[in-house]
Amino acid sequence: MKTVAVRNITRADAATAIGLGNAGVSTVHEAQGRIGLFKSYIRPVYPGARIGGTAVTVLAQPGDNWMIHVAIEMCQTGDILVVACTTDNTDGFFGDLLATSARARGVLGLVIDGGTRDAADLKAMNFPVWSRAISSKGTVKNTPGAVNVPVVCAGQLVFPGDVIVADDDGVCVVARKQADNVLIKANERIANEDSKRGKLAAGELGIDLYNMRSALAAAGFTYVDTLEDLGEFNGIDCKNRD
Amino acid sequence: MKTVAVRNITRADAATAIGLGNAGVSTVHEAQGRIGLFKSYIRPVYPGARIGGTAVTVLAQPGDNWMIHVAIEMCQTGDILVVACTTDNTDGFFGDLLATSARARGVLGLVIDGGTRDAADLKAMNFPVWSRAISSKGTVKNTPGAVNVPVVCAGQLVFPGDVIVADDDGVCVVARKQADNVLIKANERIANEDSKRGKLAAGELGIDLYNMRSALAAAGFTYVDTLEDLGEFNGIDCKNRD
Amino acid sequence: MKTVAVRNITRADAATAIGLGNAGVSTVHEAQGRIGLFKSYIRPVYPGARIGGTAVTVLAQPGDNWMIHVAIEMCQTGDILVVACTTDNTDGFFGDLLATSARARGVLGLVIDGGTRDAADLKAMNFPVWSRAISSKGTVKNTPGAVNVPVVCAGQLVFPGDVIVADDDGVCVVARKQADNVLIKANERIANEDSKRGKLAAGELGIDLYNMRSALAAAGFTYVDTLEDLGEFNGIDCKNRD
Amino acid sequence: MKTVAVRNITRADAATAIGLGNAGVSTVHEAQGRIGLFKSYIRPVYPGARIGGTAVTVLAQPGDNWMIHVAIEMCQTGDILVVACTTDNTDGFFGDLLATSARARGVLGLVIDGGTRDAADLKAMNFPVWSRAISSKGTVKNTPGAVNVPVVCAGQLVFPGDVIVADDDGVCVVARKQADNVLIKANERIANEDSKRGKLAAGELGIDLYNMRSALAAAGFTYVDTLEDLGEFNGIDCKNRD
Amino acid sequence: MKTVAVRNITRADAATAIGLGNAGVSTVHEAQGRIGLFKSYIRPVYPGARIGGTAVTVLAQPGDNWMIHVAIEMCQTGDILVVACTTDNTDGFFGDLLATSARARGVLGLVIDGGTRDAADLKAMNFPVWSRAISSKGTVKNTPGAVNVPVVCAGQLVFPGDVIVADDDGVCVVARKQADNVLIKANERIANEDSKRGKLAAGELGIDLYNMRSALAAAGFTYVDTLEDLGEFNGIDCKNRD
Amino acid sequence: MKTVAVRNITRADAATAIGLGNAGVSTVHEAQGRIGLFKSYIRPVYPGARIGGTAVTVLAQPGDNWMIHVAIEMCQTGDILVVACTTDNTDGFFGDLLATSARARGVLGLVIDGGTRDAADLKAMNFPVWSRAISSKGTVKNTPGAVNVPVVCAGQLVFPGDVIVADDDGVCVVARKQADNVLIKANERIANEDSKRGKLAAGELGIDLYNMRSALAAAGFTYVDTLEDLGEFNGIDCKNRD
Repeated sequence: MKTVAVRNITRADAATAIGLGNAGVSTVHEAQGRIGLFKSYIRPVYPGARIGGTAVTVLAQPGDNWMIHVAIEMCQTGDILVVACTTDNTDGFFGDLLATSARARGVLGLVIDGGTRDAADLKAMNFPVWSRAISSKGTVKNTPGAVNVPVVCAGQLVFPGDVIVADDDGVCVVARKQADNVLIKANERIANEDSKRGKLAAGELGIDLYNMRSALAAAGFTYVDTLEDLGEFNGIDCKNRD
Repeated sequence: MKTVAVRNITRADAATAIGLGNAGVSTVHEAQGRIGLFKSYIRPVYPGARIGGTAVTVLAQPGDNWMIHVAIEMCQTGDILVVACTTDNTDGFFGDLLATSARARGVLGLVIDGGTRDAADLKAMNFPVWSRAISSKGTVKNTPGAVNVPVVCAGQLVFPGDVIVADDDGVCVVARKQADNVLIKANERIANEDSKRGKLAAGELGIDLYNMRSALAAAGFTYVDTLEDLGEFNGIDCKNRD
Repeated sequence: MKTVAVRNITRADAATAIGLGNAGVSTVHEAQGRIGLFKSYIRPVYPGARIGGTAVTVLAQPGDNWMIHVAIEMCQTGDILVVACTTDNTDGFFGDLLATSARARGVLGLVIDGGTRDAADLKAMNFPVWSRAISSKGTVKNTPGAVNVPVVCAGQLVFPGDVIVADDDGVCVVARKQADNVLIKANERIANEDSKRGKLAAGELGIDLYNMRSALAAAGFTYVDTLEDLGEFNGIDCKNRD
Repeated sequence: MKTVAVRNITRADAATAIGLGNAGVSTVHEAQGRIGLFKSYIRPVYPGARIGGTAVTVLAQPGDNWMIHVAIEMCQTGDILVVACTTDNTDGFFGDLLATSARARGVLGLVIDGGTRDAADLKAMNFPVWSRAISSKGTVKNTPGAVNVPVVCAGQLVFPGDVIVADDDGVCVVARKQADNVLIKANERIANEDSKRGKLAAGELGIDLYNMRSALAAAGFTYVDTLEDLGEFNGIDCKNRD
Repeated sequence: MKTVAVRNITRADAATAIGLGNAGVSTVHEAQGRIGLFKSYIRPVYPGARIGGTAVTVLAQPGDNWMIHVAIEMCQTGDILVVACTTDNTDGFFGDLLATSARARGVLGLVIDGGTRDAADLKAMNFPVWSRAISSKGTVKNTPGAVNVPVVCAGQLVFPGDVIVADDDGVCVVARKQADNVLIKANERIANEDSKRGKLAAGELGIDLYNMRSALAAAGFTYVDTLEDLGEFNGIDCKNRD
Repeated sequence: MKTVAVRNITRADAATAIGLGNAGVSTVHEAQGRIGLFKSYIRPVYPGARIGGTAVTVLAQPGDNWMIHVAIEMCQTGDILVVACTTDNTDGFFGDLLATSARARGVLGLVIDGGTRDAADLKAMNFPVWSRAISSKGTVKNTPGAVNVPVVCAGQLVFPGDVIVADDDGVCVVARKQADNVLIKANERIANEDSKRGKLAAGELGIDLYNMRSALAAAGFTYVDTLEDLGEFNGIDCKNRD
């Protein structure tokens, strides 16, 4: 493995990243065709944050946060640190001192396929972190990894400069070159959903709004009036409990 | 497997369901003899909600939320959607649009042995959801399951019309025909606990309040004065650390 | 296994325990040389609490909370209950009645390698609990375990009278005889970190503050200007996405 | 919860149970419409066994195997013990002595949503067990559960007398009244698969054998000649690695 | 943490260790009062091995196997390597070269709360390993841990020189000073079980052999003749499926 | 997401793939600098297989094995099917009929980040499969994915035509263009290890063979003669148990 940092990366447009952040993970994930979603074990350390920014990537060794220190020098305003690890590890790679340093560089938050610590401080600082664990376990600075290289983090390939979106639903990556197009689609989706939301709130049924009735019938789906009519389901007698 | 929806179900009494909701999961679970508790991996999306209502059940296919749309037509005020899946799956079956639609029908909340999304929106809407995961992963509408049939959800058999109680402790089901009786016992339990709470708060010990001392002795339980007296415990020398 | 309670234990100094609680888990864990940390599956029932106190230990049987009742008699102001189990179990060993009783004895909180219930009540009472699960599942009082004996809880050996520190980062134990020394080191660490925090907030880089540049070079770590210069990383072509 | 044993149960036909056992779990699960499958965490203690028999059900308490002793009296030749637990528990409920006793009654094997022990002995005896864990942890005989009642085991409702099929793929339940019909369908399925197997072994493609090409096209599925033609996939540049 | 190796340790008697190995994990665990059992996630890399020996302990850092190399110098014939890690880690700390080296010193096997690799070679060499994972992930030699110190491994405190027993059921530790006594009890237990085994094989029921009938009745346990008599169980109607 | 199959892919050299297969996962993983290793939850369905071949990749939808049928047409002798899924899913995507069809095309085996079934048949056929689960759960053919596109499978990016190596240690990918070079290094490593193996078998210590003594000293590692000399370790009194 090359142990190297790439100094200069091409970032997605900052305004686009912010726009994608505002759209949120679920909308962005849908807008780009249901791709880019990190595995759901990556959870926010505290609820309520929503960010969009450009990835500065880190490939760390287990129990070793040396590369995060290296990465911070590469960061600029609007970046999000994305830390992958060469193996599964839940140690506390990141805490309030690194958060202080990252914030001084304009970093918006951290996504880490590993552990973080100083959870109460991070919340008090309003520095959002998405991680797989919270753990005080300290790390060493012995084995180099890499910075600003393509990494697979929580199941997704991330290139430096890609857009990262993170909120209470999780984390999503948008490839840099797709970002503008995905933002357009995300905004279309939001407008479309606003329209649907009004109809649904007014009581219109989804199966009517989405014209599902004929497809249901075509798929062999039927209706019966009562459990007594059904008789048995999956080997369970339906007549008696009801 | 039959792919079918049952239009008309017999629901537990609405006031009973509300009463059981007020009693809460732990009390109800105890009051009915420690049965009906969903597995503890079902957790609230946000803390603080407590509901009791009648089950409209859904059996969904993995990565497919078609049946939830079908189920909403079957819902009425005071219902709780209970979604089981034919296999383990954490995709995001439910989000703010479905919540809007469900609320328009008077649905109190959702319990799902699967994933949900739009967590921040659900909290903002105050629409409570209990799920096994939070995930933006979109779902399709391709393969029918069933609605208002008996399902096993998170380890418990649920019939449509049964009472569902959900709060920060988890989720519990009460069979429709048992509901009135369980509510009586739950209220007795609450009264009894109120009485005990006062005594315990005043410093009376549980081992006295519950008359445990003789049972402890009968079980061979003893007291020693110090760790030095104990000498060794489970192969650990007790004399030195203390 | 001996089924026994030890009546009298030697506790760490109360002021030391409080001081360690104020320092917090991550600092204390570091100050004592990165030892004593409970496994990260032990999580607070609600966020925001931070306590330091002296351990009253319990070894419980699965699904049986008898020993917690016995232990409460042994508690005094400033204690923290530490409950281990003879096997993995997530049942609800502890709820609001036991919390009421424990509080009446001056107990600061509970750490349990098992489940707890009445989560909403515990939060309303402001009685903090750290557990591996939240579950309403009731427990019996049939099989004795032990109280105030050395136990292994969530991977750590705990003696009665040791200091327990718990906050949003997790739980840490400090051996009684080490406690005063660890507090000194913890406070030194806090002072040292305050100094660093100011420099990092002002924009000084960690790799300069910690003099990492030469060590990085010695470890073979290099810098390149662009992804094009890197060419390939871990078998991934770097030239095209950027 | 009632603590009770039912002495007399109506069993599925013995020959049918044996026939379903010969068909195997995957075939039976398909033949009855993809229902009845136990969760995949239930695994054989040793590979190579395949059994079909009638269920004698047990609902055990955590860490307590009393009810298995009670159940053995209810067993007769061709039965399979199915042990559910009131909570998640991995203790060693069953070992070589119980296996010896069960075998003396003609029991074919054990399925347990808990732990088992004496794994080497069970293999040497050729007494097959499917469990969620292997653990030596001993159990007590303190708290009654129930025998020959309906139980939910590893996610499936099982009635006493139902057919249980277990092999290297896992475990499946067939409702007693459905068993004859499912066996017919299973045998049809086997015949049908034998026919297909020959064609596939001869090199005929599944997409031709199953006439998938038009459905693929209708679903919008397309073919391209090379990765260069594809260009980009899920944000990954396809042109360079190949 | 002290980074140190202890050169000379007092070992349990070699014949005792061998005798305990012959008795096996489940018997030994019971004979010493159900203590000392490692968590059940520690599994044999291949089935069929059974060993008893004296512990040489290792505390390793995550992703770092330096201390295993140090420990081998401390080993002598009849020892078993017991490797704990300062955090959860599944990397491949141990493979066929280390096994070759260990065997040259007379080491009987390895127990590791981490990962191992070269699984096929270990089996071919007949060098048994119990681990929490199999992983090829390489490790570094950068951060010292400790050798021949007390460690907590998979939930159990192990001192160097203690007896380790490992077989298909898992792993158990016996404190050095207790070993002779535990062996006596284990052999008594084996003799006692042999007697019972014969009776059970001859068809005597456990509930008679262990005189359980009166205790069952005292606990309120009852018998009914049929499911129809039971009527309902845990909210499930019993009358219809059977 | 594009739903597409790529007909023609450039494969790594067949002899190279076979050579890498012979070297095995652990050696190959090391030879290419500790990269390319699939997560350790991917395990062989039966032990003892070792293969090296060229990847035909599949991106499947949860509970849907349509794309595997499509992929088989793209396969040729020496290929290995590599199936990723758009979400975590353990259903039984693959069984003996698909194995028969794959074998007719010359496919060497399957790696799937999902479930497989017909485990006993696969073993009898000697068709090796590496999967995350064994499950009979049937799948549908409703939603297209993609074939012969770059996929992330069990944490690793795989391009069609890359080399896949799989054995009892797990699975590793080698980028097509690196394969020849990695094979050279793997063979060097094997030769080097053969040399070391002989020395270690003869009793030479690793800490001498690898010249670790001075590095240990430089890292502050020390030796003491006895536990009494050590006194205390990680808060545990060392003097008494030994």
